[in-house]
Amino acid sequence: MEKLIGGKSQKYSPPEYEELDLSEYETEIEGEAETFVRVAEVTGLSEIAEIRRQVYEGNIVIADVSLLRHDQLTLDRIVKDLKQLADDVKGDVVWLGEEYLIVTPTGIKIDRNKIKGVRK
Amino acid sequence: MEKLIGGKSQKYSPPEYEELDLSEYETEIEGEAETFVRVAEVTGLSEIAEIRRQVYEGNIVIADVSLLRHDQLTLDRIVKDLKQLADDVKGDVVWLGEEYLIVTPTGIKIDRNKIKGVRK
Repeated sequence: MEKLIGGKSQKYSPPEYEELDLSEYETEIEGEAETFVRVAEVTGLSEIAEIRRQVYEGNIVIADVSLLRHDQLTLDRIVKDLKQLADDVKGDVVWLGEEYLIVTPTGIKIDRNKIKGVRK
Repeated sequence: MEKLIGGKSQKYSPPEYEELDLSEYETEIEGEAETFVRVAEVTGLSEIAEIRRQVYEGNIVIADVSLLRHDQLTLDRIVKDLKQLADDVKGDVVWLGEEYLIVTPTGIKIDRNKIKGVRK
């Protein structure tokens, strides 16, 4: 029984002042106003409104326009719309390969210089 | 000469109080702590250190691993490293097609649901 209760021999001393680690809580608070990267499968002009809404909310959208490669007219219109959107929010828009357009919200820019390792 | 100097006939009146538009300056201040999207052309393990540095600095990295499609061993290792990196910073990592890996820093998550228009 003595063993189960244990620690009885130790004199009680009040715990020292300990600073609370608030970082856990901060992460939770941040979580609520989180930024998202969202991928959009663009089949025509119908997805533009939702992309616009996402970017205005501060999210990054990667627009997959590969399905429009045979519809240059619609593609041109979408590229124009997304450039206008990036202008409106002072964000950015850049092609990623030939299939994707990255659209960023206010405060996020796209670096035109690729990260490349030193070739030996 | 009268013409060159001009406006002499207009009575001088002190300019009215005009509120300064500080938005321009605010943009500059924001610019200093800006988040970037950076594309990395991954040819092997040598680019991982720079990707890690970028993500630790709060930037989003889109790693183009298309050059590694015939080197499954290196690709597996890089995917493992990037997942570990995302874990370390509580960011996120998701495939974008078969060529790109999106790696995000603390506070930025990748939505697994694509934005899709309603098909008619």
